[in-house]
Amino acid sequence: MTVYLVGAGPGDPGLITVKGLELVRSCDALVYDRLVAPELVAEAPSDAIRIDRARLSQAEINDVLLRMGRTGLDVVRLKGGDPFVFGRGGEEALALAEAGVEFEVVPGVSAGSAVPAAAGIPITHRGISSQVTLVAGHDPAELDFAALAGVGGTLVFFMGLAALPAIVDGLLRAGKSSETPAAVVARGTTAEQETIVAPLEAIAEAAGSLPSPALVIVGEVVALASLLADPVSDAQHAEARDRFAADLS
Amino acid sequence: MTVYLVGAGPGDPGLITVKGLELVRSCDALVYDRLVAPELVAEAPSDAIRIDRARLSQAEINDVLLRMGRTGLDVVRLKGGDPFVFGRGGEEALALAEAGVEFEVVPGVSAGSAVPAAAGIPITHRGISSQVTLVAGHDPAELDFAALAGVGGTLVFFMGLAALPAIVDGLLRAGKSSETPAAVVARGTTAEQETIVAPLEAIAEAAGSLPSPALVIVGEVVALASLLADPVSDAQHAEARDRFAADLS
Repeated sequence: MTVYLVGAGPGDPGLITVKGLELVRSCDALVYDRLVAPELVAEAPSDAIRIDRARLSQAEINDVLLRMGRTGLDVVRLKGGDPFVFGRGGEEALALAEAGVEFEVVPGVSAGSAVPAAAGIPITHRGISSQVTLVAGHDPAELDFAALAGVGGTLVFFMGLAALPAIVDGLLRAGKSSETPAAVVARGTTAEQETIVAPLEAIAEAAGSLPSPALVIVGEVVALASLLADPVSDAQHAEARDRFAADLS
Repeated sequence: MTVYLVGAGPGDPGLITVKGLELVRSCDALVYDRLVAPELVAEAPSDAIRIDRARLSQAEINDVLLRMGRTGLDVVRLKGGDPFVFGRGGEEALALAEAGVEFEVVPGVSAGSAVPAAAGIPITHRGISSQVTLVAGHDPAELDFAALAGVGGTLVFFMGLAALPAIVDGLLRAGKSSETPAAVVARGTTAEQETIVAPLEAIAEAAGSLPSPALVIVGEVVALASLLADPVSDAQHAEARDRFAADLS
């Protein structure tokens, strides 16, 4: 009789938390995002209600969670990454709190650190970057590029691929060096991971054709990818994914 | 014959990833941080080598990882939170890469989102904050307070408790409003979690006596805690922790 807002992690199904997977395995109903690994959706009990979020507006999702929560079902709302890092989990939590429906947030591994890591990029690194700013990049007109260019440390843009030329332009105009290392990592931590590294001034052209979802990383830490990225990581991720699926079945 | 740099998550042992727990359970050697939950250390095989990191310098840890990795052991380096978010995982990864020892980073749930969440604070929230800056707060003399006060969105300081008066002073002098909601969450996601919420100008005095580790959160999203924080969350966390320990034993 609780609605659990659960982070599924960044893509690799093995990166869900132990607590999150236990809740999925015992739930009465599962409401899941498009980006959640199908291996995790398959972990719900065979008789659980499954609802694909893709067909619903945010207001409809809130309504579904309220209605099912009120009936006394254990509901898992499974969201990509972390529910409170650009996951709109706060909105769902507020709707549940206002309606008096019991809920609990179970955090997840955010793409913001895990996807750069999978490409060999530590978003913080002693002596190189002691801070990181995670930014919603889907609407560059809303961004304060002067502040972002001046804040220092690493910048990570979520949902920034479509707006990449505008983001790069905004940062360069605000004085960010054109030589700042930048990367785009598409479908990070999955078997389809693709990474492009280029100086900031060239990254939009170099990475514009990558598929979504993708993360844009700007900062000196990107240079570490040449030392830390695993040349066979795509194959390793595919193998790990297969192993995980085999373990579960 | 790999060194795995594994994030243990923010404190609650149930917040380790499925992949991370599997690696702990099958490792030959476990090198763990002081802040890692003892329940997770206990999950390593009974005959695994266990090394408490507290007695070692960073150079000594790197050396231990290299030596054990070279001998062909499967080594898990278990770190609080996420290895690449103020976890010095990048330094260990670099040392391994330079020595030609195979390694893999397994990300974890960062305290940066999970600890605020456990106190009812979403670090991003539509209409309130579309970005978050995670900052190492242990050396405020290194911080650019003008940039931090101007960047907008949510600020999260790691290791900032001892320097809290200096952080508050720096932000106020740089023009951050004295009424900005702020919170300190100590020992977040564990049974000992404590939260203090106050306006920025009052937070240092109000929260100065909390124990470490603690996270400092500054921004309008903190106001959501009054709507989303669970008044019985401490008891719930304790119960969940006991349940997890019982499940594992």
